[in-house]
Amino acid sequence: MTHRLSGNTKFFGVIGDPIAQARAPEVWNALFALNGVDAVCVPLQVGPDRLTDFLTGCRALKNLHGLLVTIPHKPAALASVQHPTDRAAQVGVVNVLKLTETGEWTGDILDGVGFVNGLESKGHGLQGMRALVVGSGGVGAAIAFAIADAGAKEIVVADILAGRAQDLADRISTTGVPSTVGAAAAAGFDVVVNASPVGMKTTDSLPVDCAGLSPSTIVADAVMHPRMTQLLSLAADRGCVVEPGFNMMDNQLAPMAEFFGFGPGDWSPQAAVRLG
Amino acid sequence: MTHRLSGNTKFFGVIGDPIAQARAPEVWNALFALNGVDAVCVPLQVGPDRLTDFLTGCRALKNLHGLLVTIPHKPAALASVQHPTDRAAQVGVVNVLKLTETGEWTGDILDGVGFVNGLESKGHGLQGMRALVVGSGGVGAAIAFAIADAGAKEIVVADILAGRAQDLADRISTTGVPSTVGAAAAAGFDVVVNASPVGMKTTDSLPVDCAGLSPSTIVADAVMHPRMTQLLSLAADRGCVVEPGFNMMDNQLAPMAEFFGFGPGDWSPQAAVRLG
Repeated sequence: MTHRLSGNTKFFGVIGDPIAQARAPEVWNALFALNGVDAVCVPLQVGPDRLTDFLTGCRALKNLHGLLVTIPHKPAALASVQHPTDRAAQVGVVNVLKLTETGEWTGDILDGVGFVNGLESKGHGLQGMRALVVGSGGVGAAIAFAIADAGAKEIVVADILAGRAQDLADRISTTGVPSTVGAAAAAGFDVVVNASPVGMKTTDSLPVDCAGLSPSTIVADAVMHPRMTQLLSLAADRGCVVEPGFNMMDNQLAPMAEFFGFGPGDWSPQAAVRLG
Repeated sequence: MTHRLSGNTKFFGVIGDPIAQARAPEVWNALFALNGVDAVCVPLQVGPDRLTDFLTGCRALKNLHGLLVTIPHKPAALASVQHPTDRAAQVGVVNVLKLTETGEWTGDILDGVGFVNGLESKGHGLQGMRALVVGSGGVGAAIAFAIADAGAKEIVVADILAGRAQDLADRISTTGVPSTVGAAAAAGFDVVVNASPVGMKTTDSLPVDCAGLSPSTIVADAVMHPRMTQLLSLAADRGCVVEPGFNMMDNQLAPMAEFFGFGPGDWSPQAAVRLG
């Protein structure tokens, strides 16, 4: 149950298309209730052809405290953001937006932060590791840059879209972490991440060649449904530490709350974690 | 308490500036809960200088099922409405908006409907009556046209803005009900309505000269706070039937629900009335 809304209630939304599948209203309204915050998060189904108009129109809202951005709007929304964070500009994607005091958008991308936080909260730092990231779209880019930022030694990017993979590898390399394009093959990596959609369907083949996958390799999947993908099941059987896509989402809640301006006084990180 | 929101929840909002005082979120979320409707009404504070941008942006929303319009946006919003009802075009004001299937706005003004419904629900028809309407702004226009539509014999409009009063009287006359501009004096009228803001402050003088006010006159006030204005108290002491502003609002809930597309199947008019 959410609390009783009034004219004072702070407005949050999640924009996507479709929107019926979005978890954000349930998760965020539960968080607001747990923390006694007078706010509401509502689903907002915005057609891709009207995204720019919508984001322009929302700049009129004086009580809008934040928007979450989901499929398919994460890359396109960046074009409407006057003040992206350095990270969002680097990754080329946003998944959280808020208005500045002058009614302009700022935006950040927290998918990669959530990914790294999720691993680190379990004691799996990425310092000095060799990482394979399969998929060079928005999620792959967010994760790859976050892995680089967390101190990885090298990042290999794999994608059936070779040009996009090369572009991402080149951009990562400019941060000082060497990155190249390679095959989607797990052997020899300390951490393997599937950031492609392969694995969402039960009929999908594996997104990564797992011949030679070491039990010491951490295997992560950005796919949310099913929670345990074929890749993760195989890796778990092999003895690997596995990280499901839900963890990446749940570990974004605290940094998202911080982005939206909730301080320690009105927000309990414990409550956020409890929903994980 | 409102129900648990999900990605399927239908989105309604109330636009105003300021918005903290708006009753709509509490009233409509209670109505949704009472009627088992998966919808939410949120407060949306929109600055007047950005209203057009906001209404343009909202046309992108595929799950927006309606907007309520409150101060100061009722007259200005009409300019963004591609398909006003005949009534809204006539009055020159909207207080409810929804999107057509092609993503264009339609809008209606239901203040006057609520006013007449409130009186008629208590057995006070307006057929053949002489009415005095004090105040020729949006609320006054809505009420005056509704009184004309309900069969009044004659309508006198009073306002310190003589030109605006004359314009309203001329527009009412075109409907076939004779209307003129006159003094704000109650004597000789069957129904007297204060549709000006005079009476909101305890230091305000009476909006209507009540010398000669007959006990058989119905006296109404569009002012919401206080519920019993000085005008209504005086009229009640005189033995008049009195109609507070809240009744006009509460009697709009059923026609608003109908405008938003709720049918008898998913909406109980009894539930709406219960909140009155």
